[in-house]
Amino acid sequence: MESFFSFLEKRVDDCSSLLCIGLDPHIPDLKEPTAASARDFCLNLVKQTSRYAAAFKPNAAFFEVFGADGWIALKDVIDAIQEESNRMGSMIPVILDAKRGDIASTAEAYAKYAFENLDVDCITLSPYLGKDSIEPFIQKSEKGVFLLCKTSNPGSGDLQDLMVTIGDGQSSMVYLYEHVAKLAQQWNTKNNIGLVVGATHIEAMKRVRVVAPDLWFLAPGVGAQGGELESALKAGLRKDGKGMLIPVSRGIARAEKPGVAAAEMRDEILQIKSELTKH
Amino acid sequence: MESFFSFLEKRVDDCSSLLCIGLDPHIPDLKEPTAASARDFCLNLVKQTSRYAAAFKPNAAFFEVFGADGWIALKDVIDAIQEESNRMGSMIPVILDAKRGDIASTAEAYAKYAFENLDVDCITLSPYLGKDSIEPFIQKSEKGVFLLCKTSNPGSGDLQDLMVTIGDGQSSMVYLYEHVAKLAQQWNTKNNIGLVVGATHIEAMKRVRVVAPDLWFLAPGVGAQGGELESALKAGLRKDGKGMLIPVSRGIARAEKPGVAAAEMRDEILQIKSELTKH
Repeated sequence: MESFFSFLEKRVDDCSSLLCIGLDPHIPDLKEPTAASARDFCLNLVKQTSRYAAAFKPNAAFFEVFGADGWIALKDVIDAIQEESNRMGSMIPVILDAKRGDIASTAEAYAKYAFENLDVDCITLSPYLGKDSIEPFIQKSEKGVFLLCKTSNPGSGDLQDLMVTIGDGQSSMVYLYEHVAKLAQQWNTKNNIGLVVGATHIEAMKRVRVVAPDLWFLAPGVGAQGGELESALKAGLRKDGKGMLIPVSRGIARAEKPGVAAAEMRDEILQIKSELTKH
Repeated sequence: MESFFSFLEKRVDDCSSLLCIGLDPHIPDLKEPTAASARDFCLNLVKQTSRYAAAFKPNAAFFEVFGADGWIALKDVIDAIQEESNRMGSMIPVILDAKRGDIASTAEAYAKYAFENLDVDCITLSPYLGKDSIEPFIQKSEKGVFLLCKTSNPGSGDLQDLMVTIGDGQSSMVYLYEHVAKLAQQWNTKNNIGLVVGATHIEAMKRVRVVAPDLWFLAPGVGAQGGELESALKAGLRKDGKGMLIPVSRGIARAEKPGVAAAEMRDEILQIKSELTKH
């Protein structure tokens, strides 16, 4: 069985894109504040942008807010992505942005729901509870996780930027987020662990790339949150020109023509990438 | 409007209990692997244990695993707790064990669903994303949060036990979980922030009590996870004999008579508490 990241890389090759389309049906963006309207909002986005999508990333909160109907809508959206993939002959991975983090049988229940019932390929998780909270999600190499490492929000520094002391004797001090990256690099024996590293923190991204040379980053914050695409790609791309997914939500969803906006963004990423890999 | 913890303390006085009944409908404990069976399992527990419950704590994962039907079942369970509270004339707080952690509009969506739609009184959260990820949940003093601080699982040490350096110049080193406790104590201006501190780590609990003298702890791990009740209460109770909720799930749910098991546990806590506060 292939691993999650070999699956993602195949799709990246098929569509020449590092763009991850965020499916965030914010209530203010919907025609009506209903689950049906959230579903239609996402189905339209999927249809218009699928050609340029290396992955889709539905955000669980914006479905959960509608209760039971929201979860049915989310399943409809995931099914639609799979149909669209079949139609195109190239499977598009679905990353559930849920930032879950729990232990033992509780983590197993979250994993079961996400991977078996919703049938997504990957989920975002918090690392705060440690390796045993991650393990139920990485048992099968074809299912993956992105661990929160250095997030894009202003408050990310409260914990993530703390200096931690590692090792005995010859101890060294690193940022907490660097240590998370190091652990993820160690834990990634099945090629199914990536990291969330905000495009709003370029210096941090450079440090994480040093510590985790192999891992894929999910790098939110380009556009709405002020992250700069070129410096982010420069800091985070692997030597093979891969290793970074750029999630964009509002910048595409609120465009007059989301398909055109996604195409332009895909091309902008491609151009920067080809200039960077030239040197 | 009263704060979440003044509400909880009123209930603690009404029932002379520090017991928090966990509503964890694990599939292996159910008659059938269905949402209806999960609901019935919880309704029975609520009915049998409500007299001894300082709070109820449904775990979101065990409802989420049933998809849309699970969320309907969860709402039914929360409604039943409110009816039972009305019948007894003493409101029992509901703590949603969800360990959410996200930012901005996403955090707002989770808060809206938990506090408005489900109408729970409190939710568990991860601190990894920092203060701005907590703020949407603590706007109203009557709604509360328990932040993960030192969790009960074996892997909790991977991040939480790291030594972090705080402050410039006269810097000092503390455990990451101690720093989280210190932040929570600072952020708790509305008496609606508590901490999750595992009863499996007594030394850590003592340290957290020093750093956060005022805060309530939710202290899982007594019973099934091997935490000892007496040492935990000794380490974590505040000087007023409050400040700790002891969540128990399987130890009560799997007892032949859950009501009797809850009563015995309540009394055991009371006895230890009265001995401890005597000195």
